[in-house]
Amino acid sequence: MVRLRSVSRSYNTIAGQNVARLGSLSDGVFSIAMTLMVLDLRAPAQEAIRSESDLIAAMGALAPRVAMYVISFMTMGIFWVGQQTQLNHLIRSSRGLSWIHLAFLFGVSVAPFSTSLLAQFATYRTALLVYWFNIFFLGAMLYASWKKALAEGLVRQDLPADVSDAIRRRIVVAQAIYAGGAALCFVHPYWSLAVFLTVQAAYALGLNLPARFRR
Amino acid sequence: MVRLRSVSRSYNTIAGQNVARLGSLSDGVFSIAMTLMVLDLRAPAQEAIRSESDLIAAMGALAPRVAMYVISFMTMGIFWVGQQTQLNHLIRSSRGLSWIHLAFLFGVSVAPFSTSLLAQFATYRTALLVYWFNIFFLGAMLYASWKKALAEGLVRQDLPADVSDAIRRRIVVAQAIYAGGAALCFVHPYWSLAVFLTVQAAYALGLNLPARFRR
Amino acid sequence: MVRLRSVSRSYNTIAGQNVARLGSLSDGVFSIAMTLMVLDLRAPAQEAIRSESDLIAAMGALAPRVAMYVISFMTMGIFWVGQQTQLNHLIRSSRGLSWIHLAFLFGVSVAPFSTSLLAQFATYRTALLVYWFNIFFLGAMLYASWKKALAEGLVRQDLPADVSDAIRRRIVVAQAIYAGGAALCFVHPYWSLAVFLTVQAAYALGLNLPARFRR
Amino acid sequence: MVRLRSVSRSYNTIAGQNVARLGSLSDGVFSIAMTLMVLDLRAPAQEAIRSESDLIAAMGALAPRVAMYVISFMTMGIFWVGQQTQLNHLIRSSRGLSWIHLAFLFGVSVAPFSTSLLAQFATYRTALLVYWFNIFFLGAMLYASWKKALAEGLVRQDLPADVSDAIRRRIVVAQAIYAGGAALCFVHPYWSLAVFLTVQAAYALGLNLPARFRR
Repeated sequence: MVRLRSVSRSYNTIAGQNVARLGSLSDGVFSIAMTLMVLDLRAPAQEAIRSESDLIAAMGALAPRVAMYVISFMTMGIFWVGQQTQLNHLIRSSRGLSWIHLAFLFGVSVAPFSTSLLAQFATYRTALLVYWFNIFFLGAMLYASWKKALAEGLVRQDLPADVSDAIRRRIVVAQAIYAGGAALCFVHPYWSLAVFLTVQAAYALGLNLPARFRR
Repeated sequence: MVRLRSVSRSYNTIAGQNVARLGSLSDGVFSIAMTLMVLDLRAPAQEAIRSESDLIAAMGALAPRVAMYVISFMTMGIFWVGQQTQLNHLIRSSRGLSWIHLAFLFGVSVAPFSTSLLAQFATYRTALLVYWFNIFFLGAMLYASWKKALAEGLVRQDLPADVSDAIRRRIVVAQAIYAGGAALCFVHPYWSLAVFLTVQAAYALGLNLPARFRR
Repeated sequence: MVRLRSVSRSYNTIAGQNVARLGSLSDGVFSIAMTLMVLDLRAPAQEAIRSESDLIAAMGALAPRVAMYVISFMTMGIFWVGQQTQLNHLIRSSRGLSWIHLAFLFGVSVAPFSTSLLAQFATYRTALLVYWFNIFFLGAMLYASWKKALAEGLVRQDLPADVSDAIRRRIVVAQAIYAGGAALCFVHPYWSLAVFLTVQAAYALGLNLPARFRR
Repeated sequence: MVRLRSVSRSYNTIAGQNVARLGSLSDGVFSIAMTLMVLDLRAPAQEAIRSESDLIAAMGALAPRVAMYVISFMTMGIFWVGQQTQLNHLIRSSRGLSWIHLAFLFGVSVAPFSTSLLAQFATYRTALLVYWFNIFFLGAMLYASWKKALAEGLVRQDLPADVSDAIRRRIVVAQAIYAGGAALCFVHPYWSLAVFLTVQAAYALGLNLPARFRR
């Protein structure tokens, strides 16, 4: 733990230093955001089901919602892994860094909303751009977090330089692809959608980009 | 903590290594999944109750829901204990392992849905198979998690070989019984239900299988 | 950490040993149970409010709900402190102990329901007995937990004998008063209610019983 | 860990000492309070949307709710950082301190309610005073917590005196400004609102008061 010794101390220099608490709050917000859409999954009303085929049909009708939920869960997973990777390399947090992560968590909490908007209005540019902005905001906060952590000396000393590069490169490359995908919505929204889903599946499955793009 | 030293580092080698964060996210998702069905328990409307016997009747009417909730809670408990047992033996996590557990948590979050489906449509094969698939998916993810942890060298060195065997055997035996039980639904769904409930009660109460099946 | 060395190991001897995970899951369930009743607090509809006095009246109408929520929160607090006090003294958990605490958490998750039942039907014996049974169940699980922990040698070695006595005495004394209070409902439900609220306020404020009852 | 040795031990001296559990419960309650208002954000009904401009209009109609949610999130963030800063400096908790923080968490859990009340009835003095009282209660509990921690010797020994001063000064200065802002509602509620929002933005952005006010 850090001992503080300056004479006229401002509150801002002692606030929000606990990286474990930041992780624990994040896990709380993420777990809620991850399960929010499951609230929409409900067993069909008993009166509506008279035979096996009725029930199979009812399950089929739920399929788009389940798919939407899978996508939302994956998006959350990508950013949970991304944030965790950063926090693992920090000695402590700071007030400023805590607020960047609070903004990040705000973005996390609204992601189920923007995902369900996209799922319901997949052919609308507005829905695509709202979704894209949500993703962009999350990426921007993660980038700001890493920059802040480096600037304030919160990163572990023994961190090899290329880890830091890998963290930043990852965000920039991903955001560049997302932005490109979003721009395609002016051709047709389905092109954007295809790009988004491909990128997310690749991340979740841990596929590496070809080496030339990784550098 | 692990120091990373390779020269051209890919993001995938540094992401998602925190096993404590994985546990903490899991506890969040489990606690939500465990309490999700309690949202359906509501005090009866004041107008509907005029005497003690009205209230007793109203409580009686809630009994099936409470029973369904108990079963859901027990299912969650079984898998919470199972996952925890694995994570206790890991030194660290990895990106791949984190994603297996994220998939596992997805299965956890939909379990209240598949349980309530089964409770409402206990005589329907479709409901039984949906429920069984949920249980199967959870078991498959736990099995994959252990295999991955062993393959990536994430398991504690001093782990006796028979602990590893016990973990795998437990999953395989349980899943074999569940699959057998599910198959019985082609005789009559109640047979499957009886097998499922027996297995879960046995797990929760910590009964051991006879020694000859345990090996 | 405990090294396990027996030859033919049963899963039950290695499962559920992490007391930190147990605490973390409990905190998740408690935080949901604590906030469940706040979902019923809603700002009044804009159309219904035309003047300051309308709004004051609307706030007044919410007062019983807020009072009910305060009581529920306090009940949760009492048992949260009680469970935590036990877990603080454990070296590790075990499968059996984990399941006792899972049962305890089930009781926690239904407490908002039984509290709101009592608040709405305070003059009904049935509501009082349901509430009392919930409290009794929670106390019984905590008692069982401590007995199990002692029997399985999970308690820290350096624990003075009188701490163990204090933990058990507390549960027994509290449950005796609650049971006595519940029995009074056959005189009049309000007597029970008065006993319950007095005990809970005393616990929350940390009042000590007179020394002769504490022994 | 503290070894307890007195002969006739009261339960109150051994209960609630775990500061990590207190933090973990707080993170749970905060994460729920932070995401509570997101439940009100719902994608518009598919039937209502026929064109891009319909969807843009629907998004616009959601804007006030999003703004209200941002404010609520920021309020939660301010108090989360404030509580964490205190807990970081504690060696352990106590029963009394735990109950002060449980009261604090009660205030946290109702904050989304008082925020949405203020957002819907911004021109009503009643709404402003309810909101102010919520903020005041949170500040009062944090102040009481620090006083209690100092009185019971729960604060780390090596804490410089000026850290303690900074923590108290922060609360007093903030509460004085809030109280002044609340008093302005007798001129016009909008004045109070302007003061509240300015203070919160300043806190979230980490702006320092001019040095002469900081002393």
